[in-house]
Amino acid sequence: MAVQIRKLDSSAPDFKKTLDALLAFEAETDDAIESSVAKILAEVKKRGDAAVLEYTNRFDRIPNGGAASMAAFDVGQAELDEALAALPEAQRAALQVAAERIRVFHERQKQELNGFTFTEADGTVLGQRVTPLDRVGIYVPGGKATYPSSVLMNAIPAKVAGVQEIVMVVPTPDGLKNQMVLAAAAIAGVDRVITIGGAQAVGALAYGTETIPAVDKIVGPGNAYVAAAKRRVFGTVGIDMIAGPSEILVLCDGTTDPDWVAMDLFSQAEHDELAQSILLCPDADYIAQVEASIHKLLPGMTRRETIITSLGDRGALVKVRDMEEACEIANTIAAEHLEISAEEPLKWADQIRHAGAMFLGRFSSESLGDYCCGPNHVLPTSRTARFSSPLGVYDFQKRSSIIQVSEAGAQTLGKIAAELAYGEGLQAHARSAELRIKS
Amino acid sequence: MAVQIRKLDSSAPDFKKTLDALLAFEAETDDAIESSVAKILAEVKKRGDAAVLEYTNRFDRIPNGGAASMAAFDVGQAELDEALAALPEAQRAALQVAAERIRVFHERQKQELNGFTFTEADGTVLGQRVTPLDRVGIYVPGGKATYPSSVLMNAIPAKVAGVQEIVMVVPTPDGLKNQMVLAAAAIAGVDRVITIGGAQAVGALAYGTETIPAVDKIVGPGNAYVAAAKRRVFGTVGIDMIAGPSEILVLCDGTTDPDWVAMDLFSQAEHDELAQSILLCPDADYIAQVEASIHKLLPGMTRRETIITSLGDRGALVKVRDMEEACEIANTIAAEHLEISAEEPLKWADQIRHAGAMFLGRFSSESLGDYCCGPNHVLPTSRTARFSSPLGVYDFQKRSSIIQVSEAGAQTLGKIAAELAYGEGLQAHARSAELRIKS
Repeated sequence: MAVQIRKLDSSAPDFKKTLDALLAFEAETDDAIESSVAKILAEVKKRGDAAVLEYTNRFDRIPNGGAASMAAFDVGQAELDEALAALPEAQRAALQVAAERIRVFHERQKQELNGFTFTEADGTVLGQRVTPLDRVGIYVPGGKATYPSSVLMNAIPAKVAGVQEIVMVVPTPDGLKNQMVLAAAAIAGVDRVITIGGAQAVGALAYGTETIPAVDKIVGPGNAYVAAAKRRVFGTVGIDMIAGPSEILVLCDGTTDPDWVAMDLFSQAEHDELAQSILLCPDADYIAQVEASIHKLLPGMTRRETIITSLGDRGALVKVRDMEEACEIANTIAAEHLEISAEEPLKWADQIRHAGAMFLGRFSSESLGDYCCGPNHVLPTSRTARFSSPLGVYDFQKRSSIIQVSEAGAQTLGKIAAELAYGEGLQAHARSAELRIKS
Repeated sequence: MAVQIRKLDSSAPDFKKTLDALLAFEAETDDAIESSVAKILAEVKKRGDAAVLEYTNRFDRIPNGGAASMAAFDVGQAELDEALAALPEAQRAALQVAAERIRVFHERQKQELNGFTFTEADGTVLGQRVTPLDRVGIYVPGGKATYPSSVLMNAIPAKVAGVQEIVMVVPTPDGLKNQMVLAAAAIAGVDRVITIGGAQAVGALAYGTETIPAVDKIVGPGNAYVAAAKRRVFGTVGIDMIAGPSEILVLCDGTTDPDWVAMDLFSQAEHDELAQSILLCPDADYIAQVEASIHKLLPGMTRRETIITSLGDRGALVKVRDMEEACEIANTIAAEHLEISAEEPLKWADQIRHAGAMFLGRFSSESLGDYCCGPNHVLPTSRTARFSSPLGVYDFQKRSSIIQVSEAGAQTLGKIAAELAYGEGLQAHARSAELRIKS
């Protein structure tokens, strides 16, 4: 059982084409999923709790013939607290430290956005207010890919932003609750936990039901049904990005222990078979050492089958001309996670325009950032770091413009507005401005 | 030809239900448009310029048998400058003053977001960088609803953000160019203007062609085909919100000249038949005065047919208990444009949580903000101000997290990360952290 990871050279004539093909990822739209989700959402919108209850009992195989009412899916605060208290001490402490660090970082983020006003010479006041969303829904997947760290990363920024009510939904296939997820909800200060999932949970959060309040935004990862449902309710509520497979790009100058780099590539590859791990390095000998480390370390990995598939299908070790070229390629890739494992990481970081998160220096492994450095681990994937940002406090706030025109301001601005409004054929706009002008 | 505008009373038992029905707006998905757009995008992706040329010649009825090559659609800088020079002096001056005010406001917005770094006791550095998008596409509609003010409102924030290249597309049905739009592009500093439109222009911007570079984000309003195309390319590129019909909500304490309020309601209603104009006021006599002004002023309006339809179908004059209740209702409506036409506008503004833009005091007519106050006129519609913001500099910037863990930091953070990673069953994550811990 060996991994075949492709080796590329940036000086090869077909390199750009090969790289483009390697990066290409298109989430397929599945017609069956789309029509199923459309139906589920319509039913939830129309029948509320009754539909959510039916779907949940069926899809999540709730035991004992299913729940009799929605009340069965509410997890009380006491149960959350118990889950936290029952965790092994080391795990509880780790979650708590991680949560605190995430909170501190996001508090800093909040300080950036305070809004402003300024007053012009004629007394006109202009500005911008920043306010939190009222109520947010957080989707947490159930089953095998259940990550308590995601609960912290989604809920804490909302809390810091000042969101008044956070409603978390998490499905419990076969009625089984993940205690670490409940504990994380307790730590993050989630206001309400409901054990429902799938498109029906997304619909309940978007439209509201008799027992579930409609939220203003839904965030958090989910399977294809959840992603399709989020796309469909977008507009009724806000949503975060629909995430693609996770990626790591390592820029290395050849001075880091090759075992460390190999393990960093594994740490992404173990996520799932579509995950992408790429190394860029100007040193061919070093690349050979990393490859040797990969083969050496692989047998000890518990998720080696996933690693073999993702490294084989979507991974690459790329020999580049120099670190400058590595930075150029990194800007094209616009990676979710970018490690700059080098002697002078800041020098190279200054040449990077697009990356979800940059991990600078050889001690900054991505896994530290995934859990406990403080910055968010929800990051733009599939080259979307060209135009989007990590999940943050700003995703739970919005701005309103403030325009308070003085009587003097209305005289000068009114003439300009009227001129432009007539130019656009909008007479009522022009007249509305002109009425405020003294004759 | 008289307008029938509904009059509601917030104390009526069915008021909430009536209001909900009045606010309800769902953009219909048209299957014919969807499949047509899917085909156009696929062709543009596959055949590039050839497809764009064919579609443009056909859909825009380009004269003389159509353009022979894409080069015919490029508008050079000289032509933009000429359009500006040829404008009537008052119009040119108005556009220039408006542009300068928009620039000043958005410069202030830019100052809010500088990024940050902070260093922890063990030398670990955490932070956030803010960088502009590389290249942005601006869609400007052609034909009857062509607004030069929109060129300014979309292009200037991108320019202020530091976007290197702004590519504007604007269709020219029958080959006719709108000179005021070209002049606005010259003022805003648009880098390239291409006279193409529709789904084919959105596809060209998203995927790139032989002559058109792929952009990172597409903003700007368009018809149903453009909206459908933007939804479909979202993910490959960023997009702004898909706007619904425009809305104004006026909160008035009954002290403003009723003609002013009537004209403000008209100024929204004249946009299109789906536009929404609502007045909330605690004074029944004043509402009657506004209604009288509506009937008095209507015959003089050039777009009165549109006004009659939109006020009749979607408008309302609402008697509320008091201004406090008006603010509560305003928070439910989360209007795109909220005028607080009252003696103490700030007192009421402080009770507003959700609005795209707030126009405070009776001299602040929405039309001033539409053109030249400075804040953006691209605002969240259809209650989306609950979770989204005016278009701004921040829409043309994105953030990257910075994580530089010191050797000492890796010792403490590594243990926490490993504990949590093992808890989530991600062994390579744990090992990647542990390798950095000194034994």
